[in-house]
Amino acid sequence: MPVDRPSALTGTPASSLVAATMCRQVALMDKKLKKKVLQQVPYGAYIVGTKAEDGGDHLMFGTWLMQTSFKPPLVAFAFSADSRTLANVRRSKAFAVSFLADGMDSLAESVLDGSFDTVKTERTSAGLPVVRGGAGWIECNSLEVLNRGDHRVVLAEVVDAGAGKGKPLRLDALGWHYGG
Amino acid sequence: MPVDRPSALTGTPASSLVAATMCRQVALMDKKLKKKVLQQVPYGAYIVGTKAEDGGDHLMFGTWLMQTSFKPPLVAFAFSADSRTLANVRRSKAFAVSFLADGMDSLAESVLDGSFDTVKTERTSAGLPVVRGGAGWIECNSLEVLNRGDHRVVLAEVVDAGAGKGKPLRLDALGWHYGG
Repeated sequence: MPVDRPSALTGTPASSLVAATMCRQVALMDKKLKKKVLQQVPYGAYIVGTKAEDGGDHLMFGTWLMQTSFKPPLVAFAFSADSRTLANVRRSKAFAVSFLADGMDSLAESVLDGSFDTVKTERTSAGLPVVRGGAGWIECNSLEVLNRGDHRVVLAEVVDAGAGKGKPLRLDALGWHYGG
Repeated sequence: MPVDRPSALTGTPASSLVAATMCRQVALMDKKLKKKVLQQVPYGAYIVGTKAEDGGDHLMFGTWLMQTSFKPPLVAFAFSADSRTLANVRRSKAFAVSFLADGMDSLAESVLDGSFDTVKTERTSAGLPVVRGGAGWIECNSLEVLNRGDHRVVLAEVVDAGAGKGKPLRLDALGWHYGG
């Protein structure tokens, strides 16, 4: 089963106008320095569960999540522009985010490798797959997708949440970086 | 000088339609659980520098930042809907984000208290104020503002970056929470 690897930066090309503007600006900037500073932003380790077109479960490892509103409770998640997850979200308007707990390193690797069969899941009331034994989960309904960049920002309302246990796993605890 | 306190949730009211929809959905959700799970998302500790209408510097403590694209390098920052910072960004299209370093707790508190005079700053080439002695900074040009929720997501391109030193300060290291 295909998997959205965070290391694969195969986003759709920006429009030529945006690319030209970007190149002028980036030429003035020290890219190594920009990368170093941006890698200081902390992220969590999440499994995003969506429904594929055939009704099957799809799982993706993701990390670019933040809250953007208390009332209503909104979050933004940036998904790779060419990911199956983004296609599923555009179609179904729904996704679940499982918060991995400390010690779930091998589960994270299984999802990256597309070995979904080894990942124990359960379902939200809306039928979305969430990881068993995680630090908790939220279910989100997408409101808007921003069509810029190699990842697309999905703004979504949190409509359900589930309990978990353990300390939430952070991306740097996995020894992984995503950013820069 | 006014200050944008992260503890003050005084966002503009959602439209009645959005509010009604939200209430129906939230009624089904355990709000305490939702809060607990959302508070597991890790955040950094940043000072956002903007130019006020009179040309003066404005500083705000902020935490809801994430990267959203590698090429072009984009970030999203969620600013309180009623903040002076958001008004400045809407007008000038520019802001700088200073990454606080470990040990800068009192500086963070000074910015929260509006005591900008005690905060040592320098300027980016575009004239935006950044904090001296931080872990680094980025300068951003806003591309789009999402007008939903009590915070507004500003999608922006990173156009410059500056070096710093020290370990980046995380919000939880300050003993503060913002989320839920």
